[in-house]
Amino acid sequence: MKEDYSVIGRSVPKIDARLKVTGQALYAGDLKMPNMLFGKILRSPHAHARILRIDTAEAERLPGVKAVITHKDVPAKKYGVSPARRDENIFCIDKVRHVGDKVAAVAAIDEETVYRALKLIKVDYEILPAVFDPVEAMAEGAPLIHEDFPRNINVEIHQSFGNVEEAFARAFHVRKDTFLGHRTYHCPLEPHVSLAFWEGDKVTLYATTQKAHYLQVDLARQFDLPMGKVRVVCPFIGGGFGGKAAAMGLDFAAVALSRITGRPVKMFYDRDEMFTHNRGRHRQIMELTTGVDRDGKILGVYANFIMDGGAYTGNGIATAYYAGSLLPLSYVFENFKYDMLRVYTNLPGSASQRGHGAVHPKYALESQLEMIARDLGMDSLEIRLRNRRKPDTVTVNELTVNSCKLETCIETARKRSGWDEKKGNLPRGRGIGVALGGFVSGAGYPIYRTNLPHSVALIRVNEDGSAATLYTGAVDIGQGSNTVLCQMAAEAMGFRYEDITVVSADTERSTHDFGAYSSRQTLMSGWAVKRAGGMVKERLLEAAGVMMNVKPEELDCRDAEVFVKNNPVVREPFGKIAREYFVKNGPLVGHGSYTPPKLGGDYKGGTVGTSPAYSFSAQIIEVQIDEETGEIGVEGVWDVHDSGTVINPALVHGQSHGGIYMGLGEAIWEEVKFDENGRILNPNLAEYRMPTALDVPMMDSLAVEGFEPAGPWGAKEVGEGASVPTEGAVANAILDATGVFMDSLPLTYEKIWRALKNKKRGENADPR
Amino acid sequence: MKEDYSVIGRSVPKIDARLKVTGQALYAGDLKMPNMLFGKILRSPHAHARILRIDTAEAERLPGVKAVITHKDVPAKKYGVSPARRDENIFCIDKVRHVGDKVAAVAAIDEETVYRALKLIKVDYEILPAVFDPVEAMAEGAPLIHEDFPRNINVEIHQSFGNVEEAFARAFHVRKDTFLGHRTYHCPLEPHVSLAFWEGDKVTLYATTQKAHYLQVDLARQFDLPMGKVRVVCPFIGGGFGGKAAAMGLDFAAVALSRITGRPVKMFYDRDEMFTHNRGRHRQIMELTTGVDRDGKILGVYANFIMDGGAYTGNGIATAYYAGSLLPLSYVFENFKYDMLRVYTNLPGSASQRGHGAVHPKYALESQLEMIARDLGMDSLEIRLRNRRKPDTVTVNELTVNSCKLETCIETARKRSGWDEKKGNLPRGRGIGVALGGFVSGAGYPIYRTNLPHSVALIRVNEDGSAATLYTGAVDIGQGSNTVLCQMAAEAMGFRYEDITVVSADTERSTHDFGAYSSRQTLMSGWAVKRAGGMVKERLLEAAGVMMNVKPEELDCRDAEVFVKNNPVVREPFGKIAREYFVKNGPLVGHGSYTPPKLGGDYKGGTVGTSPAYSFSAQIIEVQIDEETGEIGVEGVWDVHDSGTVINPALVHGQSHGGIYMGLGEAIWEEVKFDENGRILNPNLAEYRMPTALDVPMMDSLAVEGFEPAGPWGAKEVGEGASVPTEGAVANAILDATGVFMDSLPLTYEKIWRALKNKKRGENADPR
Repeated sequence: MKEDYSVIGRSVPKIDARLKVTGQALYAGDLKMPNMLFGKILRSPHAHARILRIDTAEAERLPGVKAVITHKDVPAKKYGVSPARRDENIFCIDKVRHVGDKVAAVAAIDEETVYRALKLIKVDYEILPAVFDPVEAMAEGAPLIHEDFPRNINVEIHQSFGNVEEAFARAFHVRKDTFLGHRTYHCPLEPHVSLAFWEGDKVTLYATTQKAHYLQVDLARQFDLPMGKVRVVCPFIGGGFGGKAAAMGLDFAAVALSRITGRPVKMFYDRDEMFTHNRGRHRQIMELTTGVDRDGKILGVYANFIMDGGAYTGNGIATAYYAGSLLPLSYVFENFKYDMLRVYTNLPGSASQRGHGAVHPKYALESQLEMIARDLGMDSLEIRLRNRRKPDTVTVNELTVNSCKLETCIETARKRSGWDEKKGNLPRGRGIGVALGGFVSGAGYPIYRTNLPHSVALIRVNEDGSAATLYTGAVDIGQGSNTVLCQMAAEAMGFRYEDITVVSADTERSTHDFGAYSSRQTLMSGWAVKRAGGMVKERLLEAAGVMMNVKPEELDCRDAEVFVKNNPVVREPFGKIAREYFVKNGPLVGHGSYTPPKLGGDYKGGTVGTSPAYSFSAQIIEVQIDEETGEIGVEGVWDVHDSGTVINPALVHGQSHGGIYMGLGEAIWEEVKFDENGRILNPNLAEYRMPTALDVPMMDSLAVEGFEPAGPWGAKEVGEGASVPTEGAVANAILDATGVFMDSLPLTYEKIWRALKNKKRGENADPR
Repeated sequence: MKEDYSVIGRSVPKIDARLKVTGQALYAGDLKMPNMLFGKILRSPHAHARILRIDTAEAERLPGVKAVITHKDVPAKKYGVSPARRDENIFCIDKVRHVGDKVAAVAAIDEETVYRALKLIKVDYEILPAVFDPVEAMAEGAPLIHEDFPRNINVEIHQSFGNVEEAFARAFHVRKDTFLGHRTYHCPLEPHVSLAFWEGDKVTLYATTQKAHYLQVDLARQFDLPMGKVRVVCPFIGGGFGGKAAAMGLDFAAVALSRITGRPVKMFYDRDEMFTHNRGRHRQIMELTTGVDRDGKILGVYANFIMDGGAYTGNGIATAYYAGSLLPLSYVFENFKYDMLRVYTNLPGSASQRGHGAVHPKYALESQLEMIARDLGMDSLEIRLRNRRKPDTVTVNELTVNSCKLETCIETARKRSGWDEKKGNLPRGRGIGVALGGFVSGAGYPIYRTNLPHSVALIRVNEDGSAATLYTGAVDIGQGSNTVLCQMAAEAMGFRYEDITVVSADTERSTHDFGAYSSRQTLMSGWAVKRAGGMVKERLLEAAGVMMNVKPEELDCRDAEVFVKNNPVVREPFGKIAREYFVKNGPLVGHGSYTPPKLGGDYKGGTVGTSPAYSFSAQIIEVQIDEETGEIGVEGVWDVHDSGTVINPALVHGQSHGGIYMGLGEAIWEEVKFDENGRILNPNLAEYRMPTALDVPMMDSLAVEGFEPAGPWGAKEVGEGASVPTEGAVANAILDATGVFMDSLPLTYEKIWRALKNKKRGENADPR
């Protein structure tokens, strides 16, 4: 299926690289408007408390303050991505549900005045008992966080495919472990910013969002506006990772303050506020049972999970489904049962984070599989090769897999890492571990309306054919989607990448698109762009046919030259034909859209997990453990990814490296920690220990040659998948290095040190 | 031809009114970019001098200065709108040609540093003899301003239609007068600003231009770039009036400084610099000879004009043609001769100003016609009615007139002004005068490339049909074109004006359009919009037909509702159909373009004056003269305009009022004056005496009901035409009030006072 492409497959420079490195790129925080006010949200100091009274009078009197608003000043309706679980108000009405919950907001002429005004708002609270653990939260007599959710159960999922009990009964070996996944946070470099202004009955919001379109829908719903009266614009965005994937208090507050003051209002979350807004990865208790036959073939898996949802649902509804639905992706098994309870606690809401839902469960499965291999005396790679997903198969939970190069991924990672030489032969304290990954290439269904095209693209060639503008609603959050989509536009048109510019992520000025989540844009926005470019090319070749006196079907266009396919010396510049076209026919434009086909997996009302295509990967990690201190040195990472056709190798590697970096951080160092009152202990970049350049080795990433029939030019996911196997690979490497089975994330130095100490004691006690 | 429209014909609010009155609208001067530098041009203090040496060393050493550039740092090629008369360099090379000519430029970190650096640039000049009068400039031995233009003659036009000598020979009365038209300046409220920045090999210029597209072409040519590597964006623009209709030194300097420094560079002309850049109305000597028969019917006109072009050509090439070609527009005559010499002088260049070319010549013709009526004892209106242009005629110089409601204009103005009661019955010192006008609705041919569509529009409906975005390259310079074009889009689509937004005047993000000059956008951009909207409607009705089970041709759409034409109770919302369309077909878009038909007037190589349609008007002005002081009080203005179908009455009146205001200013108070060294004496708003609100009366403007078959919905010109008759009407009113024939503009208090004093002396000498 290897094709000879002229633009895709090349590591062209990022379309915005120059603007970014020269500091010209304007992020939302850089934006200024005449008469602009600054705004800030007053946050709750308590984890759970009844609001008795809010007195804003003194704050309002402070010179420079233009508005102080509470729940009384905004629509009372609740928002949230799941219609059945809209549980969040712009500002709290009856009570606050976590430290940092939104109580009021101030707009004033400068930031200093805003901060002074916040201190002058008096709130009387009646402190309520709080609960911070999901199991405790479900207990009889636990404080109810949302009165309409008994036992604080926010989401309850019970799915069963095949007969897992029967499978376990006939299994040679059944292993049950309970793993703990920890709470982490995305930490995008750029904070959340919302800048709103009204023109009459129409509002514009400059927002740090991954989903301009959804935010438009949410604002329209919240403020009872037609969609056409809401414009959402994404300036340059400094990372999202799932944390900018839902409408949030800041957006609504900015819109409300701007409406009341009649002036533009800019608001941002500082680093501390970002942490208390959170919406990062869920803390989760993962009881996992796997049964295998004598040869290590997986017969059934039972996942019984409890997630700490924090105080609100948000995208967490999808997380709860993903956590189960993606488990059967990289391994084949015919019996699967999934029980999930997502539970409210008095902590900040958890939601989507890179590798949405899949990361912690995959750590559990990969760790358990490694123990099963040990139990059976099998090689780590052998058990994985035996159970690996194969192309053109359907998972037990009805996910349809087309392309799948997992075998190649595993064998390539084996070779590149030197697995065979290393495994069993490494010096003391050194170990090597493996895990497999897989992820969606976009969600099969949008959440708020079925059937709607998910992506639309429009291409307009300029008057002399020397440039073209691509309009796309896709959101470039730093991952490079604008670059990839422009490459695709150029390829489809037979044009030059260098001469394409892009207008993206503006609900008014670009086109409709669902945005950057579930690793969807390369495939979905890509299809729309391919079709738009195809329409341009078709129209161009039609005109060229007349001019060159050749049938259009005998012509092709490439690198901005139209030529006769079987006599390529006969050629004309794209620009010449385009000019003629313009003179004769008016503007040369093309458009295209993408709606996913009807996909399987419409089971039990849950559609999360169905995707037109799935990526796969194998990841091997080598560690060095300091047995005295427990310190982990990550010595090597080999990631082999099946992303189908690679559109831009440098960006694919960039995504892989970034994903692995995040995975390593979450595996070893990062954790959002709370005190006994529900306050975050480390809400800053000094104490929330992200890895530095010193912590990560050079990474070896490789994209195997593949072709996904459901993807444009055969392309599929790369954005989130590389994060999926990392925690498991690290855990397995530690196991290999130390013999210690780590069932609780993060895999900290201290935990290893304690485990090694315990093990030593055990060894001492038992001299075998 | 009166149609029942739902959106056009209504005075909807300007689409940007709210942003402008709340101060949110960002003009180029408001724009800031990270790392932005400020730039300024060093101007010549001499009218004519050889540049011996430019020493920039000391300026370059000043801390904060990032670049000091001269002609050596920029492409040497000359620019200008007429290929045969490109006579201007970015910076002067051999010599300076007027006070204020461009010698060098500085970019520095702040404005203060820029001004200090300018003072540190040392230029050695050899002062040359200068010439400031076009007649003197043509004399033997006069200093040559451009060596390749002998006798300083810049443009020479000799046109003859019919046989004017024969006409004069058989005329009952031939009158020859010489009039003087003065130099005026546009004085837009917003100064010229250029903000340039480079991304690699591509430059973006935020510019205060009326013609984004032409500026793109000029920048591409000057810096040898493909058009696709030049982006020109117009922010909000605070008035143009012809003064922002050509690429200028500021644009080129900003682009050059930004390229050299690698940083964004913002430059502006302050009020003084605006005056020395100038490009306003030409000073001109107009020898006019008209022959009439016994009944006052015009038999022939000979116009022998000399224009002071100043030091450069610019759009002045078009002015020279327009000055003659539009003379035969409002009156019918079969013999016409036009001789024109546009001559270089050592003054700032003159070029296009509202009513381009037509204003001063029309003053001459209307004044002379008034004297002929007096000579013949005819009524002012009678001679005009007798000679007036009629619909569906062709002028002697081959301009094809379709609609023409001049008779209605004259009769309506007569009634509304109370002409019949007033004429001859006004008290001493009070007078009433009339003049006719007419103007093009766009130029029939573009200057730089024939056949190219002049305007393109693209419309994209949003996903749920609640809004639509219009992309147009038309430039809203304050006249309200964005409003009018959005009304047109709504009318064509059957949509609501309130739900249309516009992206205009951005060569990369909007569509191709030649821009705001020659009063072209309502007709030309309007056609493109009408066609784009029509395509949207056609596609919508096609889909509606399927949904409603009705043939599409039996359906119509209006005010965002689709209905069965002969059974209008059967109807569906636009939004519902649009949503369905989107789901089934992808994006609902439409596009359209406009290329003028082949027009007559392709005579003697001169095409200026041909237009798809012409507007007409009658203007009556009443004045009160203080005979002691010469002071003129403008007591009444009645303007009746035939603009065809009126798209937005408020904006039509706004244009009329603005045009009359400018006409009154030029007629009575305004003049750019020079000292004996070619320095402007009054380059500021205090001394360049524009009228204030106290100087102008309430104006009575009326648009007669008309229909222009060559215009969209029957619409044609309104932007410039109202300026055309004003000077003549004022002169004729003064004549009526005082009996003084004023053959020299402006018609100042002092001139009237002197004339009255002379007349009194004459009366004393001759007691008749």
